[in-house]
Amino acid sequence: MAEHGFAVEKTLKALLDEKKYRTLKDILITMNPADIAAVFEELDEERLPVLFRLLPKEPAAEVFAELEPESQELLIRGFSDAELREVIEELYVDDAADLVEEMPANVVKRILAQTDPQTRKEINEILRFPENSAGSIMTTEYVSLRPSMTIAEAITRIRRTGVDKETIYTCYVTHERKLLGFVSVKDMLLAGDDETLIRDLMDTNVISVNTLTDQEEVAQMLSKYNFLALPVVDNDNRMVGIVTFDDAMDVLQEEATEDIEIMGGMTPSDKSYIRSTPLDIYRHRIPWLMLLMVSATFTGMIITGFESRLAAQVVLTAFIPMLMDTGGNSGSQSSVTVIRALSLGELEFSDIVAVIWKEIRTAVLCGVTLAILCFGKILLVDRLLLNNPDVTVMTAAVVCIALAVTVLIAKIIGCSLPMIARKLGFDPAVMASPFITTIVDALSLLVYFGIASSLLF
Amino acid sequence: MAEHGFAVEKTLKALLDEKKYRTLKDILITMNPADIAAVFEELDEERLPVLFRLLPKEPAAEVFAELEPESQELLIRGFSDAELREVIEELYVDDAADLVEEMPANVVKRILAQTDPQTRKEINEILRFPENSAGSIMTTEYVSLRPSMTIAEAITRIRRTGVDKETIYTCYVTHERKLLGFVSVKDMLLAGDDETLIRDLMDTNVISVNTLTDQEEVAQMLSKYNFLALPVVDNDNRMVGIVTFDDAMDVLQEEATEDIEIMGGMTPSDKSYIRSTPLDIYRHRIPWLMLLMVSATFTGMIITGFESRLAAQVVLTAFIPMLMDTGGNSGSQSSVTVIRALSLGELEFSDIVAVIWKEIRTAVLCGVTLAILCFGKILLVDRLLLNNPDVTVMTAAVVCIALAVTVLIAKIIGCSLPMIARKLGFDPAVMASPFITTIVDALSLLVYFGIASSLLF
Repeated sequence: MAEHGFAVEKTLKALLDEKKYRTLKDILITMNPADIAAVFEELDEERLPVLFRLLPKEPAAEVFAELEPESQELLIRGFSDAELREVIEELYVDDAADLVEEMPANVVKRILAQTDPQTRKEINEILRFPENSAGSIMTTEYVSLRPSMTIAEAITRIRRTGVDKETIYTCYVTHERKLLGFVSVKDMLLAGDDETLIRDLMDTNVISVNTLTDQEEVAQMLSKYNFLALPVVDNDNRMVGIVTFDDAMDVLQEEATEDIEIMGGMTPSDKSYIRSTPLDIYRHRIPWLMLLMVSATFTGMIITGFESRLAAQVVLTAFIPMLMDTGGNSGSQSSVTVIRALSLGELEFSDIVAVIWKEIRTAVLCGVTLAILCFGKILLVDRLLLNNPDVTVMTAAVVCIALAVTVLIAKIIGCSLPMIARKLGFDPAVMASPFITTIVDALSLLVYFGIASSLLF
Repeated sequence: MAEHGFAVEKTLKALLDEKKYRTLKDILITMNPADIAAVFEELDEERLPVLFRLLPKEPAAEVFAELEPESQELLIRGFSDAELREVIEELYVDDAADLVEEMPANVVKRILAQTDPQTRKEINEILRFPENSAGSIMTTEYVSLRPSMTIAEAITRIRRTGVDKETIYTCYVTHERKLLGFVSVKDMLLAGDDETLIRDLMDTNVISVNTLTDQEEVAQMLSKYNFLALPVVDNDNRMVGIVTFDDAMDVLQEEATEDIEIMGGMTPSDKSYIRSTPLDIYRHRIPWLMLLMVSATFTGMIITGFESRLAAQVVLTAFIPMLMDTGGNSGSQSSVTVIRALSLGELEFSDIVAVIWKEIRTAVLCGVTLAILCFGKILLVDRLLLNNPDVTVMTAAVVCIALAVTVLIAKIIGCSLPMIARKLGFDPAVMASPFITTIVDALSLLVYFGIASSLLF
């Protein structure tokens, strides 16, 4: 798709240089706003505003909402007040709130000056809510109906007010702003009798979220129930907005990316990789690298403590990387599995005993298999094939026992640390490979040298 | 939420034991099908069919679709032919196709015998498509309109046929099954004049996918364009079905889980962690553990090759874990970032040069920072604080130069291998931490011993 976008971009640039505005307009109106935004992102600073002005009013706002903050700022700085007002008017209020949040103070001032008082109030309401809460991602533009309306009256209301709503397909029935139930356009259309009262048609088993519910939980709920939208209520069950499926999809994608970044030993970034400079990337990566490097001091100390014996049995050193890596891999398998299950809501802290018991049984299976394989490999490859006389059956036994014990420890630590982190209110994803590896490294060395000491010396 | 489910489950069990069926029915009809299914999964084999039979027809089918295959099979084996027919009739055809795919042959035979010929044809059509293709996740139940219809006629058609459709809100305009355009119920309701022709209202810039398009690409497109549904067409642009947003959400979640599992060094599993036995988990984890353990033979061989010199300078051994871990962490940061960007469609193979250049600059920043920090740490902690006279300034220099070079190599390998894997048609996620770690381990040792040889001996 990127290649396709690249081709369009070249055509548009050429047409722009030849000032063929009519043709440009004709091409742009056939394109989807998301695609237009993707092409616009590739344009240079002078071409972007020219091309943007060729868009009709409605797609213009949609394209604007899809652009990255840098491009939005560039456009706003070039807009006249009238142009700015036009775009802001067409934006959904949740997109307007996102915009206000991203822009520098002087731009925000201009934006708010061109916003009508009602929208300004709604924007401020959304901005009040903490980041990543349902309140911060909701929109206040939903269709509300009264229970005493007939279907015909409800449809008339939708026809009158629907144009500005983010979705018209699920309507919410309220009385004095209290949420009573919901009714879908499908139910209304298929009801048969247009004089049926909304009160009699509505579903009163309405599932809602609080303004402070975490956005990930909201997204998981939308996905679980297959809803188009989920109503957001305040502590008094007064309806304040809705979260729609498209925002939920974005949240699920973002949260998965964030988990993956944290599991990879990075602080999560809002910027896409392409838009990040090496310095941006450096800032997100170096803290973990430094922390993990310094904590590897312990492994160094363990080896130093065993130095004199290692000097006598240097052959033991050759198996350190294999032991550490297998321990690290075993532990990260468990931690990654548990972290994902926690993210998806499949596991909770109360499951910790069951999880540890499952991991212990898995670890025994894995540990025994690996130990047998390793024993054979050491005797066949290291002793016979590579003809290393230092590798004795006893060495092989020490390595393999240490291996099995390490796998067991690694899996227990790998599965329990993320659950403990969740319980303590930390992000479980922090307890993934890099972190687990560091702990397991130290422990595997202690086990290895401990077993070596008792069996070899 | 799991705790909430647990409480309901206890109540239901108690009521069931007291045979209070009326009360049970009253409770069940207030619950959402997804929640009912979650509770049903916790019931034992005898209670499940009893409780299921208390459900009214329509929620019964929805609950059935949400159950795990094991529970579905259990229920079907207990159903009379009439009961089975009733459930199958109420299922959406994509859910029916999923069911047929999951059940053993003798159950499938019974299911198909109770399915009307038209539905059977549609199920077979869906099953023809390869796994993970748009065709395999689509439903054939969509609203199609003719271009010559008026809005009033279209709405009448929706009212007549809509009840069985997975979504009525986006309707597709076809002529001789060719896809001409689409029109939303919102556009129809807000058009103002019910005599407007669909031909004049429809959007002809319709974005569609082929039956063979990968499900992940379909889901990403739905998410990008914020569509409720995407039309699926065959090679002749004949419309065959739609993929709806709720299925796309499930695909995005599944694909993220699969990527995370592969990145964690496991073969991906269809079963949730809770439902997997230790033996299931073992099967998904042991292949990678064995492969990576055996490939660690190389690191062992490198150390063995350097053994005589290590015996003279055992102090060098103490820094091996730190070097290997930092290299592994640096490499997995890059690989994880690139793998996710590839999954999200932000990167393609053609970007490889730009990516490597970005990673080189990041690696220089990280490498220099770490080397300086490490140099200070070695001299202060290892030499002064731990009072180890073997640690000389020269040792520190060797370790730190090796560290910087390792970080550079790790980041180049970490970013390029996933992109090369994608180009060769493999899953880039395979090139994550465990794999990268193994390669970087060997390389970091070679670098370390190489630098040590030239500077120390």
